[in-house]
Amino acid sequence: MAALGMGPGAEFDLLRRIFARLGDAAPSDPLGDDCALFKLGGTTLAVSIDSSLEGVHFRRDWLDFMEIGYRSAAAALSDLAADGADAIGLLVSLGVPRADGQEHAAEEIMAGVAQCAQNVGASVLGGDLVRFDRYMLDICVIGSVQRPVRRAGASEGDGVWVTGYLGGAGLALEQLRAGTRPPTALRNRYACPELRLQAGRWLATHGATAMIDISDGLAADAEHLSAASDVGIEINLEQLPRWEGVDALAAAASGEEFELLLTMPPHFSDASVSTFRGDTGVELTRIGVCLRGGGGRRGGVRLLKDRESVTLPPGYDHFRQ
Amino acid sequence: MAALGMGPGAEFDLLRRIFARLGDAAPSDPLGDDCALFKLGGTTLAVSIDSSLEGVHFRRDWLDFMEIGYRSAAAALSDLAADGADAIGLLVSLGVPRADGQEHAAEEIMAGVAQCAQNVGASVLGGDLVRFDRYMLDICVIGSVQRPVRRAGASEGDGVWVTGYLGGAGLALEQLRAGTRPPTALRNRYACPELRLQAGRWLATHGATAMIDISDGLAADAEHLSAASDVGIEINLEQLPRWEGVDALAAAASGEEFELLLTMPPHFSDASVSTFRGDTGVELTRIGVCLRGGGGRRGGVRLLKDRESVTLPPGYDHFRQ
Repeated sequence: MAALGMGPGAEFDLLRRIFARLGDAAPSDPLGDDCALFKLGGTTLAVSIDSSLEGVHFRRDWLDFMEIGYRSAAAALSDLAADGADAIGLLVSLGVPRADGQEHAAEEIMAGVAQCAQNVGASVLGGDLVRFDRYMLDICVIGSVQRPVRRAGASEGDGVWVTGYLGGAGLALEQLRAGTRPPTALRNRYACPELRLQAGRWLATHGATAMIDISDGLAADAEHLSAASDVGIEINLEQLPRWEGVDALAAAASGEEFELLLTMPPHFSDASVSTFRGDTGVELTRIGVCLRGGGGRRGGVRLLKDRESVTLPPGYDHFRQ
Repeated sequence: MAALGMGPGAEFDLLRRIFARLGDAAPSDPLGDDCALFKLGGTTLAVSIDSSLEGVHFRRDWLDFMEIGYRSAAAALSDLAADGADAIGLLVSLGVPRADGQEHAAEEIMAGVAQCAQNVGASVLGGDLVRFDRYMLDICVIGSVQRPVRRAGASEGDGVWVTGYLGGAGLALEQLRAGTRPPTALRNRYACPELRLQAGRWLATHGATAMIDISDGLAADAEHLSAASDVGIEINLEQLPRWEGVDALAAAASGEEFELLLTMPPHFSDASVSTFRGDTGVELTRIGVCLRGGGGRRGGVRLLKDRESVTLPPGYDHFRQ
């Protein structure tokens, strides 16, 4: 997810062409960050917009309506976490099919949105309702941020860290695809992901140099961070904190985890990690290091397993059409 | 258009039910205003989200892609005008059909959005791009406001005023429906509506007591204002400033005009009107007066023609499905 959502390849090119057309109305840093930032008085605001579309981002046989609302809001709010922002509120444009005997659906969806918003102290500020052939949520999130952390900012020598445990969302999705209902805790990794706003703020105020939320998968999002910061990134797959039953490659590929991938200066200590865990209740694990970039094209991400470089199997693409 | 978009009857009821479910996450004044307002530091922010959907809000045989972008942005930004706000920026979630030989469409649409944003000094802050079966824009607008004017606030004796000339959008739409291309100036009333942000700010700082933008039609939006302010409203149709070739009833029914309907204290003078015209280049016309409300249910809007009460023919409903 991004202030300007980056899909793979072709869509990224399209976005570049779009921004070439915007002229003076274009943001100064349009591509490649989770939120757009702007100053207002003494405050920096962070904003982002995020689409969740039935058949692309969710399926009604996998999620109930409250979960659809919750998950869509979580995906949008996660962009604030990635910048180290506080959530203020969100606006929802909700598309609902006409008269399919699901009149309660809009209420349920919005109740899920509201639940997720409340969990991070945000309000539902407004919305729009439109009749549509599928369920669709466009959610605009607004936050404030004291020390914004962007994707650019990592330096050679910085440690690479990740919050929580990876692979649960992918495993849950795999089971849903296979037609089995995952155990509740696993299912919730997909249906009601925990948000990392508090963790993001903590990390921002304790010196994080670059940060992104894991929406495309650790490996793919590390590429984004590497490109934006112009550093190489080396990740030791053995060190990945993994959901039970998930192997390291699957954990590195699993998308929509909504955990944070970040870099910290080399001196970030074990004592600090303990403080983080105590303050947030969230795990924090060092998984790699930033290397010399070497001019944009080089660098990139190297995944190591038993000290050997490995490549990810064909990417996790949730079920984007 | 509204912070929480109000469609007619049934949708309004649905929104009420939705908000009953939101609990503490609900805004304090969720329904019946153009923007949601919240304070941040010393600033009051105004935000709104607005959907424009192919086949509902626009048709591709009536508008080119730049116009689709321009008009969708104008509809969203008009909510800021209605609150007397300054535009800061907007975020766009853009749905585009896959590979229909219209790869340039997204660029053209965003160029139209950007043009409209630039015209009112706003930036395109970010967006999301999603593959879709139809063209769709969800636009979230963000502004700041020094003296917000809401729909509630009109008192007995206040004058009822309107900016610009009414009926052009409806007439253009009528001609488009009939398969004829309207003359450019008329067509632009529909395709590239002028925004009233400067006018809205002027009116807000010069004492406007209540304000709304005309999206559902003057008569319908006067009802919203009357209900929110708990006043009766009497409008003299002869006084409506009308687009050439439009009769008074059509002007009162024409939707998506994006002019401002507002109330001013009784002492608002002809000299002030002249100043307004000089400062903004926009017409301002007194068309009626606020009467005693009488407790919510009574009051409402009375349209007078030759001093007789008239009713509007079946409402203008653009081409909502």
